[in-house]
Amino acid sequence: MNKQQLFQQIQKKRSFLCVGLDTDILKVPRYLQSAADPVLAFNRKIIDATAKYAVAYKPNLAFYESQGWQGWHTLETTVEYIKSKYPEIFLIADAKRGDIGNTSNLYARTFFEKLNFDAVTIAPYMGEDSVKPFMAYPEKWVILLALTSNKGAADFQYLKDSETGDQLFETVLKTSQNWGTPENMMYVVGATKAEKLKEIREIVPDHFLLVPGVGAQGGSLQEVAENGMNNQCGLLVNSSRGIIYASNRSDFAEKAGEAAREVQQEMENLLKIKKLV
Amino acid sequence: MNKQQLFQQIQKKRSFLCVGLDTDILKVPRYLQSAADPVLAFNRKIIDATAKYAVAYKPNLAFYESQGWQGWHTLETTVEYIKSKYPEIFLIADAKRGDIGNTSNLYARTFFEKLNFDAVTIAPYMGEDSVKPFMAYPEKWVILLALTSNKGAADFQYLKDSETGDQLFETVLKTSQNWGTPENMMYVVGATKAEKLKEIREIVPDHFLLVPGVGAQGGSLQEVAENGMNNQCGLLVNSSRGIIYASNRSDFAEKAGEAAREVQQEMENLLKIKKLV
Repeated sequence: MNKQQLFQQIQKKRSFLCVGLDTDILKVPRYLQSAADPVLAFNRKIIDATAKYAVAYKPNLAFYESQGWQGWHTLETTVEYIKSKYPEIFLIADAKRGDIGNTSNLYARTFFEKLNFDAVTIAPYMGEDSVKPFMAYPEKWVILLALTSNKGAADFQYLKDSETGDQLFETVLKTSQNWGTPENMMYVVGATKAEKLKEIREIVPDHFLLVPGVGAQGGSLQEVAENGMNNQCGLLVNSSRGIIYASNRSDFAEKAGEAAREVQQEMENLLKIKKLV
Repeated sequence: MNKQQLFQQIQKKRSFLCVGLDTDILKVPRYLQSAADPVLAFNRKIIDATAKYAVAYKPNLAFYESQGWQGWHTLETTVEYIKSKYPEIFLIADAKRGDIGNTSNLYARTFFEKLNFDAVTIAPYMGEDSVKPFMAYPEKWVILLALTSNKGAADFQYLKDSETGDQLFETVLKTSQNWGTPENMMYVVGATKAEKLKEIREIVPDHFLLVPGVGAQGGSLQEVAENGMNNQCGLLVNSSRGIIYASNRSDFAEKAGEAAREVQQEMENLLKIKKLV
């Protein structure tokens, strides 16, 4: 999916919501536990209930890998389900991969050919050759970690470079612009750092930002939009627990749909304020 | 496996060789391609031929994930094969994971409980809470990326902190010593940076270092030993392609064994020089 198509989806659905499919098998309602694949059964219902309100889904690989090869099978069938039923959805593998060039090549093949994701999250520590192989695929995306939403972000991401005075996350933003374009790169910027979004927008005015941390982690959607929205929206805001675990009973899908619609409506208002819908 | 046991294995086998099980299905000899699981068949033969000369094996996850859930199944059966037949082997998941605390918890469960690895490689970018969950397991190990062997290492790992004057990889080494001990942390240090090993040894005198990049990537074993060996050896040197693809014909396992023995003999000499065997 290219940038223009993504923006069109945002306008059509009046939403820049990404639903995090971080499905923990222990939190799947009891009545689904007897299904052949409880996580898949749960995901399907969540997807059907929320697809109207979301432009993107983002399974975090850790949740699937915790079930071993069966979990990878669930991931693959979840991807197939989304891609066949909702081909307009932007699909992100939250994998935070990154390895030497040859090996990153293989990861790119895995997520873009074998699994048909549109984007993969990548850790920047190993530099250019660990990131570039993902950009050899037309209309596929790298989403590079810049400023993350967790406490540990402070350990290294704020370190100031003695030559440029830039903090590490700023250096990552600046350096990586030599590797790709706003047409094949996005950045992860945690919503818990909304005040930093303005600074980041000055460095990367045109790139999409994937923003986790709204809701359960404490970030405010309004602040994110005020500081981070550009003239093509430029934001995908992720919500996981607040949507997929809105209820733990048999009405879980209905409640997830309601929670997603609520976020979508707030997003619609924010898009209207910026005159993007 | 604890540090003392690892050192004992090194003394017993007179080797600090780690064999990288980076098995590319396209490079498995033709006569094995008809096996139910060609990569597993290949791995078993490689393991049987090299286990006498190696103290560790390190499958890189990318190679297995490139085959989707079947690849994960191969990984699991490879781990089971090693753990049941060669329980003295130190088993490293080269996964380069790292995510927010909750999610890293899941990764730790996956690699240490579901798959019974002894160690996982971790990317440091997200800081303390992304690393610590792996250290909650007794006798399991984090192997943190410090200075990698690839060209892109230069993009961020050498950046100098304006306050301390330390380069990023040095800051990672220093900061992370507050998170763990030489009993549950190691560091990845590429052999292509052998001259840096001396510096690194001053910062982490007691930690084990996992050193990739000897052989195909151009590093020299002798230099690594001269600059990096401590009084418990403190080194695991990885070789992948030079061993597992020593031949692409039906004698591949025999040739892999010979290549591993050759490295082991060089290692034995280096251990003797330091009077460790």
